[in-house]
Amino acid sequence: MTDAPTACLLIIGDEILSGRTQDANLKFLGERLAAMGIRLKEARVIPDVPDVIVETLNTVRALYTYVFTTGGIGPTHDDITTACVARAFGRKVIRHPEAVKKLVAYYGHVPNDARLKMAETPDGPDVALIENRATAAPGFRIANVFVMAGIPSIARAMFEAIAPLLKGGDPMFSSHVDAEIKEGDIAAELTAIQEKYPHVSIGSYPFAREGRFAVSIVARATDKAAIAAALNEVAAVMTSKGATPTLGD
Amino acid sequence: MTDAPTACLLIIGDEILSGRTQDANLKFLGERLAAMGIRLKEARVIPDVPDVIVETLNTVRALYTYVFTTGGIGPTHDDITTACVARAFGRKVIRHPEAVKKLVAYYGHVPNDARLKMAETPDGPDVALIENRATAAPGFRIANVFVMAGIPSIARAMFEAIAPLLKGGDPMFSSHVDAEIKEGDIAAELTAIQEKYPHVSIGSYPFAREGRFAVSIVARATDKAAIAAALNEVAAVMTSKGATPTLGD
Repeated sequence: MTDAPTACLLIIGDEILSGRTQDANLKFLGERLAAMGIRLKEARVIPDVPDVIVETLNTVRALYTYVFTTGGIGPTHDDITTACVARAFGRKVIRHPEAVKKLVAYYGHVPNDARLKMAETPDGPDVALIENRATAAPGFRIANVFVMAGIPSIARAMFEAIAPLLKGGDPMFSSHVDAEIKEGDIAAELTAIQEKYPHVSIGSYPFAREGRFAVSIVARATDKAAIAAALNEVAAVMTSKGATPTLGD
Repeated sequence: MTDAPTACLLIIGDEILSGRTQDANLKFLGERLAAMGIRLKEARVIPDVPDVIVETLNTVRALYTYVFTTGGIGPTHDDITTACVARAFGRKVIRHPEAVKKLVAYYGHVPNDARLKMAETPDGPDVALIENRATAAPGFRIANVFVMAGIPSIARAMFEAIAPLLKGGDPMFSSHVDAEIKEGDIAAELTAIQEKYPHVSIGSYPFAREGRFAVSIVARATDKAAIAAALNEVAAVMTSKGATPTLGD
């Protein structure tokens, strides 16, 4: 477990920080990476400010096995991610010949300069395009950094294109047991169960069900048997307090 | 504008990074802070790992006027935010007498030790409770850090309780103009308009409308007249290309 690959998601865009747009890429990437055994350790949402993008990228690409970025690779003036990634790596920006070909094929002619910006990547032998079947404008990989679109449907398609290239680790499994009980009524027992199963990460998440207090106890681990054992103990505690637990994945 | 107060949101919780839970606090806080003239400059999502929480908090509280945290202040073993905030400030954790009173009043008796954990705060004269009308368990403020619940309804109530205490700046306004046109067809003109209005931040966000390409051009600034002037120019460009722009807030 200790040497599982790690990852960071950089969400680039004023529209997320202003509250205009609800990010949907973190949840998707979190789920997919967990299933692949890659530990998403951090996500940062940063504005469309070149110095911030460059500095943040250089910080996180040194910390994690993989860095995924979303946002800022379109044709307009506010799409500055590619230029910033190139700057972070000390590279020139080039028009990637293969990307130009894809755009020409998509549009049926050589597109205007704005659209040709979508064929730009940093220069270097470690740069490879990420396929985009939706609009042809590709993302790209440079070293351990994967530069993807912000639009969720395109980000997802790009991730699936690169997923086979990522080195995974032991998949992280998770299951949960829910009951209509207040988490404060089982907290002491939960602490004991967590201590008994140190390799299972047990989280307690209260929620409301038809106006009544309920809690979801989530267990995450690479060992399914350990998850089941821990959650069975949680369920027994819930039952002993008069609640009716239900187990789920 | 240059001296507008700044803010960072720290979203604390494995459940967000694992993709189990969709964060809803960033969008809310982004909108509210923008309206108050506080610039949300960054959000970080970090796991339930004490060293990470302490180190990240100490980094961001030195960078920004205000830091808001969400998550990890409940009664269970995985609620470690309060202890980590205290450690970041080099303070002891105490049972805050006023918070204990609130919990006793809410439950009608002295609650168990797990629930009394929700009355804990760092020690010090700069610590003040943040009211929670939903479940009585308060958040707290220490210096420029506001520690709030993760559950969105409670986080929102806590934010409204502290909003009057925050020093705002010039509110950031935003409007948009939408049209069924590809952003690549107006990108050059948008660049020129952005250069003409350097104090207006113009963003271009493509979307699909009934399967057709559309774009929303968003202008953000403290000056409503400048927003209107810039967007009128954008609308004129859209019209000149055969599209029918609609303006909105």
